[in-house]
Amino acid sequence: MTEKTRRRLPRAVREEQIVDAALEVFSQRGYHAAAVDEICERAGISKPMVYLYLGSKEAVFVACVRRESERLVATLREAAHTGDTPEARLWAGLEAFFRFVTDHRDGWVVLHRHAADLGETVAGEIDRARRAIMAEVTRLVRDGIALVGEPGTPATRLGEEDAEFVGHALVGAADSLTDWMERHPRRSAEDTALRMMNMVWIGMRQVLGGEVWTPPGRR
Amino acid sequence: MTEKTRRRLPRAVREEQIVDAALEVFSQRGYHAAAVDEICERAGISKPMVYLYLGSKEAVFVACVRRESERLVATLREAAHTGDTPEARLWAGLEAFFRFVTDHRDGWVVLHRHAADLGETVAGEIDRARRAIMAEVTRLVRDGIALVGEPGTPATRLGEEDAEFVGHALVGAADSLTDWMERHPRRSAEDTALRMMNMVWIGMRQVLGGEVWTPPGRR
Repeated sequence: MTEKTRRRLPRAVREEQIVDAALEVFSQRGYHAAAVDEICERAGISKPMVYLYLGSKEAVFVACVRRESERLVATLREAAHTGDTPEARLWAGLEAFFRFVTDHRDGWVVLHRHAADLGETVAGEIDRARRAIMAEVTRLVRDGIALVGEPGTPATRLGEEDAEFVGHALVGAADSLTDWMERHPRRSAEDTALRMMNMVWIGMRQVLGGEVWTPPGRR
Repeated sequence: MTEKTRRRLPRAVREEQIVDAALEVFSQRGYHAAAVDEICERAGISKPMVYLYLGSKEAVFVACVRRESERLVATLREAAHTGDTPEARLWAGLEAFFRFVTDHRDGWVVLHRHAADLGETVAGEIDRARRAIMAEVTRLVRDGIALVGEPGTPATRLGEEDAEFVGHALVGAADSLTDWMERHPRRSAEDTALRMMNMVWIGMRQVLGGEVWTPPGRR
């Protein structure tokens, strides 16, 4: 074993330890409020060592984002290759994603939430705005579905939890699709709405009609 | 007309002008890099007046977020009340949302994008991570659907634009549903995936089978 290979493993292990500790701190405090001192303490590694390994707080954050997003991508890729139909692959991918979020909570918070870094007042306002929009959509979903039953079917009222679920899915999809619109500037607002309607409504209609999807193994 | 009412209208108008100008600046520069001087210049209002009306850069930002989110909520509410079936209401809501995003671009950018405020390196890394995840999901959607046709149906290969659309919708919905999970801690990752599968797959299956949704007026 050469000098070089002998030192390579500990370095990688150390970096993992730093990233593990940093994820906890960034997830709890946000980027700006996170202190390198706290990261060092949790990792049990001295500050000069942390700077030696990774260079700066910014570099530590970058290492965190990189590791967690690579893990998520690898998780999705692996899951999607386990199924042998489009249906089985989508199911495997969704399950793997929500499991990743549950099991790697700090990593997910770091990838997902950034407004907190804008300071309390500003972040609070954005949060309030998001919640107001979500509450309105949830209410519209619940009332919109309850008010009128389609001819021949009974009026269905979604429970609060289900209405919130549909609200979150719709808001999240629509929010993300504004990035798709940005990439395809020749697509109009109506085009985008039409595509989303095709993706969402046709399924919702079936589900409201009583159809239930169950995983292949449990049918 | 009393002294008070004579001054009330101009004040509201001035505040609107400040918010209009501020939205442009915040949207182009992000919160931290935005300069009150530039807002004043675009609004044609002096700095002391801006501070007199709204108080601080933070307060100007809060006023922007508040106005735009109230407008968006009102737009959604109004649209959803124009339809007389769940289907028509969902369609009206989606169309109104994507039109709002197109017509109030600066407002949407301010509500939607915050990572840019973390500084170039950090925001760049988060952006790269998001793009990598989106690219992977888009690839999985395209290949996953193309590899195997369901028995009795031909293998369908989505075009790049369609695969990207489905990828954005799935990533956005899943991303947002992690907030729903946070609110319902007793729901497992599998529960969440199952609900999302019910919302998405049943519709996708029909669409892949050739079903197309068209707006009620155009059938």
